[in-house]
Amino acid sequence: MCGADPVDPTTASPMPPIDRDPLLLTPGPLTTTLRTRQAMLRDRGSWDEAFNRITGEVCRQLTDLVEGADSHVCVPLQGSGTFAVEAALGTLVPREGKVLVPNHGAYCARIVKILDLIGRRAVELPLAEDRPMQPQAIAAALAADPGIGHVAVVHCETGTGILNPLTEIAHAVAAHGRSLIVDAMSSFGALPIDVRSTPFDALVAASGKCLEGVPGMGFVIARERTLAQCAGRSHSLAMDLHDQWTHLQRSSQWRFTPPTQVVAALAEALAQHREEGGVSARGARYAANCRRLVEGLRSLGLRPFLPPEVQSPIIVTVHAPEHPAWDFPAFYRGVRERGFVLYPGKLTRVETFRVGCIGAITPHDIDHAVHAIGATLRALGLPATA
Amino acid sequence: MCGADPVDPTTASPMPPIDRDPLLLTPGPLTTTLRTRQAMLRDRGSWDEAFNRITGEVCRQLTDLVEGADSHVCVPLQGSGTFAVEAALGTLVPREGKVLVPNHGAYCARIVKILDLIGRRAVELPLAEDRPMQPQAIAAALAADPGIGHVAVVHCETGTGILNPLTEIAHAVAAHGRSLIVDAMSSFGALPIDVRSTPFDALVAASGKCLEGVPGMGFVIARERTLAQCAGRSHSLAMDLHDQWTHLQRSSQWRFTPPTQVVAALAEALAQHREEGGVSARGARYAANCRRLVEGLRSLGLRPFLPPEVQSPIIVTVHAPEHPAWDFPAFYRGVRERGFVLYPGKLTRVETFRVGCIGAITPHDIDHAVHAIGATLRALGLPATA
Repeated sequence: MCGADPVDPTTASPMPPIDRDPLLLTPGPLTTTLRTRQAMLRDRGSWDEAFNRITGEVCRQLTDLVEGADSHVCVPLQGSGTFAVEAALGTLVPREGKVLVPNHGAYCARIVKILDLIGRRAVELPLAEDRPMQPQAIAAALAADPGIGHVAVVHCETGTGILNPLTEIAHAVAAHGRSLIVDAMSSFGALPIDVRSTPFDALVAASGKCLEGVPGMGFVIARERTLAQCAGRSHSLAMDLHDQWTHLQRSSQWRFTPPTQVVAALAEALAQHREEGGVSARGARYAANCRRLVEGLRSLGLRPFLPPEVQSPIIVTVHAPEHPAWDFPAFYRGVRERGFVLYPGKLTRVETFRVGCIGAITPHDIDHAVHAIGATLRALGLPATA
Repeated sequence: MCGADPVDPTTASPMPPIDRDPLLLTPGPLTTTLRTRQAMLRDRGSWDEAFNRITGEVCRQLTDLVEGADSHVCVPLQGSGTFAVEAALGTLVPREGKVLVPNHGAYCARIVKILDLIGRRAVELPLAEDRPMQPQAIAAALAADPGIGHVAVVHCETGTGILNPLTEIAHAVAAHGRSLIVDAMSSFGALPIDVRSTPFDALVAASGKCLEGVPGMGFVIARERTLAQCAGRSHSLAMDLHDQWTHLQRSSQWRFTPPTQVVAALAEALAQHREEGGVSARGARYAANCRRLVEGLRSLGLRPFLPPEVQSPIIVTVHAPEHPAWDFPAFYRGVRERGFVLYPGKLTRVETFRVGCIGAITPHDIDHAVHAIGATLRALGLPATA
């Protein structure tokens, strides 16, 4: 792949490009293990019992990751994580429902957009984009409007990398007797979430994030007695989670053709998640990646956007250097030629770029990435202290 | 996989089970080539130019398969084919629109269900399930109701295996000045469709059918000037094809995380489709599979549901033997142990099963499948002439 790229003389390293895949330091798709990808080398029938067993096992394991076996069920859905977010909102929120959306970033804003489009009322709670959500602010908004039935929050806002206090938010929502829907896309599997201490009605995540599967499947872990009341609410056939769930219960099969290879890769990725030591071990590796990354970036004179106390171990937003030679596309290409794919910023008011800490990568890889970033900055004529 | 199944003594062959994947004689997921699946062994960044080029190339090739380069664009969508069907209906049909749906099978009925759920009016034209759609009947229904703006038809109704006269239907719809939406899920890539002689506004298919990719991605080939008028019509954010298309045009990227491995596998499958000789060669191989299958089944005393003149070369529906020992689950298991996965019937009034002719399989494989079917029938105590 590298070899096929046109070489930019301003950023080219003196080394000839080779056909080796770069590591993905992005919020997903991630770098996965070869073992996970090799699970896709088989064809499986979607009606076949052997595949049904994989689906059932994957769903059971996903529910177990939040200690939800006694109260919750996992409903898988074809498509990206956003499909599953829309499906959760459309299935759980009644057509005349009203949803509070604390908004401090791109993925919160996406929830507002979905609600507008599917005809559910969104009450936006605008928040500063560099600070976590305050449970008290959510509690106050709920107290002020008894018409709000649901609260939709993002656990880790990937637009910046902020981690929100999910347990405290869940308690505030429960104390007001409302229903909580969590977008845990970029935290699930790496940060602890226990439904017994963090009550929620639905939590949404996807195959290709911290579970280190490949992209193509989302899932919603829903409280069974809540989901059971949601027949006929959905705005969509394909995204009706109640229908998907009852069909799975009846037949052990997905309603429509499942992405069989993606599901098989997720099963293999979950086995490796267990072998690594589960959520805490996965989270510890990512935290080590993140610490090493932040230290390394600082040593190059680059500044993270967030203060350390609210920085999640998932993705780090970095201020672009304030220098006339800064050019993100050239920087991206230079780092890529040196073996790492970065991610653009997603903030509107300040220029940033992002570096992911997740995937089948270690602090050693992060060291090399920092080295590649430094070398690229220097090649571009930018200061790089290290 | 075979080895993990509990062995049913009534159907077990005397051979010990081995861990080899059975061939899939189903309407998808199909048996694919190892070369296609090996394309999934790489991780690719969804924001990266190398992946964007794959997406662009896949879309261009899909449009070329219907000679649509001058008039149509291809919009890919995450999820199964049904997601793309719903997306096409939701994006093209205005919220107050009315759609004629000639209905002679399960996939026609699914279109009616989608329209009901997304709040577009469906006018159903009920038809016999063992006969192709009559263009005159469609023309008469359009003449009778000027309020109908769109017609949604299934090219090959996989519930039975009937092939519909798409060119004649397209002309009837065009003659009445209405818009045609085609579900070509199980025909695209194997049966010729040329937009210059078969005018349509949207045609829907998916990665895991006759193109012999893996499942996880649908696509809609839409008339560009029609699609350009569809901003804001969709009932869904994730399934808004206008938004997906404009985003792709602007950035060369999918709006939400694409199933990168599935897209890469489709690119590799399309290369093999070209090398085989394109649509006509692919269709000829499937037709040879189908002929061999029908002959073989007849030689065993089994009767295809459809008369030969309306039988598509995609999937064959077969009457279950009228015999007290018939038991589909046992039959399925027995054939599976002998290396082939069949598919259940989808008709409500008569008991049938289905055998697919598509995928990376040849008439030799079909011979072996017929042999396995005969051996299983005999093991179950059923007559099998051959």
